[in-house]
Amino acid sequence: MFPSKKVQNLVGSKIQVEMKGEKCVLEGLLMSADDYLNLHLTNTTEVVDGQKSRVLGSVVLRGNNIILLNPVND
Amino acid sequence: MFPSKKVQNLVGSKIQVEMKGEKCVLEGLLMSADDYLNLHLTNTTEVVDGQKSRVLGSVVLRGNNIILLNPVND
Amino acid sequence: MFPSKKVQNLVGSKIQVEMKGEKCVLEGLLMSADDYLNLHLTNTTEVVDGQKSRVLGSVVLRGNNIILLNPVND
Amino acid sequence: MFPSKKVQNLVGSKIQVEMKGEKCVLEGLLMSADDYLNLHLTNTTEVVDGQKSRVLGSVVLRGNNIILLNPVND
Amino acid sequence: MFPSKKVQNLVGSKIQVEMKGEKCVLEGLLMSADDYLNLHLTNTTEVVDGQKSRVLGSVVLRGNNIILLNPVND
Amino acid sequence: MFPSKKVQNLVGSKIQVEMKGEKCVLEGLLMSADDYLNLHLTNTTEVVDGQKSRVLGSVVLRGNNIILLNPVND
Repeated sequence: MFPSKKVQNLVGSKIQVEMKGEKCVLEGLLMSADDYLNLHLTNTTEVVDGQKSRVLGSVVLRGNNIILLNPVND
Repeated sequence: MFPSKKVQNLVGSKIQVEMKGEKCVLEGLLMSADDYLNLHLTNTTEVVDGQKSRVLGSVVLRGNNIILLNPVND
Repeated sequence: MFPSKKVQNLVGSKIQVEMKGEKCVLEGLLMSADDYLNLHLTNTTEVVDGQKSRVLGSVVLRGNNIILLNPVND
Repeated sequence: MFPSKKVQNLVGSKIQVEMKGEKCVLEGLLMSADDYLNLHLTNTTEVVDGQKSRVLGSVVLRGNNIILLNPVND
Repeated sequence: MFPSKKVQNLVGSKIQVEMKGEKCVLEGLLMSADDYLNLHLTNTTEVVDGQKSRVLGSVVLRGNNIILLNPVND
Repeated sequence: MFPSKKVQNLVGSKIQVEMKGEKCVLEGLLMSADDYLNLHLTNTTEVVDGQKSRVLGSVVLRGNNIILLNPVND
């Protein structure tokens, strides 16, 4: 399964995303993703050292600035 | 709804944009956006620690340098 | 009007450009721009803290390293 | 053998990946890779100074943020 | 004249190039350039604070990591 | 000769590569290169201040994170 297909399979799930130039990790519900890995998340929060620090709500992330993403198991 | 469509839906709304290599966040009225997430904003201001710091007016943002963007509710 | 069209409309005008990895802002006369936002400026100067610091003359800027650009009103 | 073919040949093997903006190296089992070098790894761990520091499990890495990757011989 | 055409016109001339992640500027004779602004320079030297610091000879520069380039008048 | 052709001509030769986000330079035997300047090197070592510091062996480098490369004369 190709990486972008793996991401498509995570739509509807909670994911963590590490962005370039961010010290924190973003956590949110993956609403959609395209082939460039641009992502739409809802219920997004910043997580610093394992603590939720800032509520961002609905955000769009630019794919080329994603370092890595992985599913979160609550 | 794909991420770029989500951004198109924000045209006419006030958004916040976090750029790579910027410590501040930009806030402005989204006039247009293309598939690369290049954005045209008007009434743009820099926001540092929640305070408006500098008025930029009409700006064009290069999509690949956008970390994230989200709608602002006044 | 799409962002790249907005930039085309600035050809012949004085603009400010914030580049990635630059602490200063560049100011110059926009001679041409392509779809990638590669720019050709003339009479370019670096501006640090609102002061002109270094004269660069004719420069080509790589579009993907542009953070933002805006028109300058003298 | 082209670089992307070299990466395809590593599918099923354990690899190390150095990412932009990461101080650590990621180590995991390469499940899939596409032409952009987007990668899907499982059993991924962060390695800091040769020590495993954090378990990430299943992750997707954005290809353009990969500095280098190489096979790991256990 | 489009920016990439402007660069083509500099083939055979001495140019200065500011690269991302470099503190110095590179100076060399432009041998060739493609549409991505990948450059081949010969007689390349690093210039730090206006002083030649290191001789690099024949180098290839990746276009997307170029911040700006301009012609040098000896 | 275009920059990518120049790189093709270096296949089979020892090269030095400066990567983004790396303090060291990589030195290795160029096995292959594609149009994006993705590279496959063997016998790769990190070179810090002119000293070989770490043996990496066979590595794949992502082209967009290459700052510059040049041939090494032993």
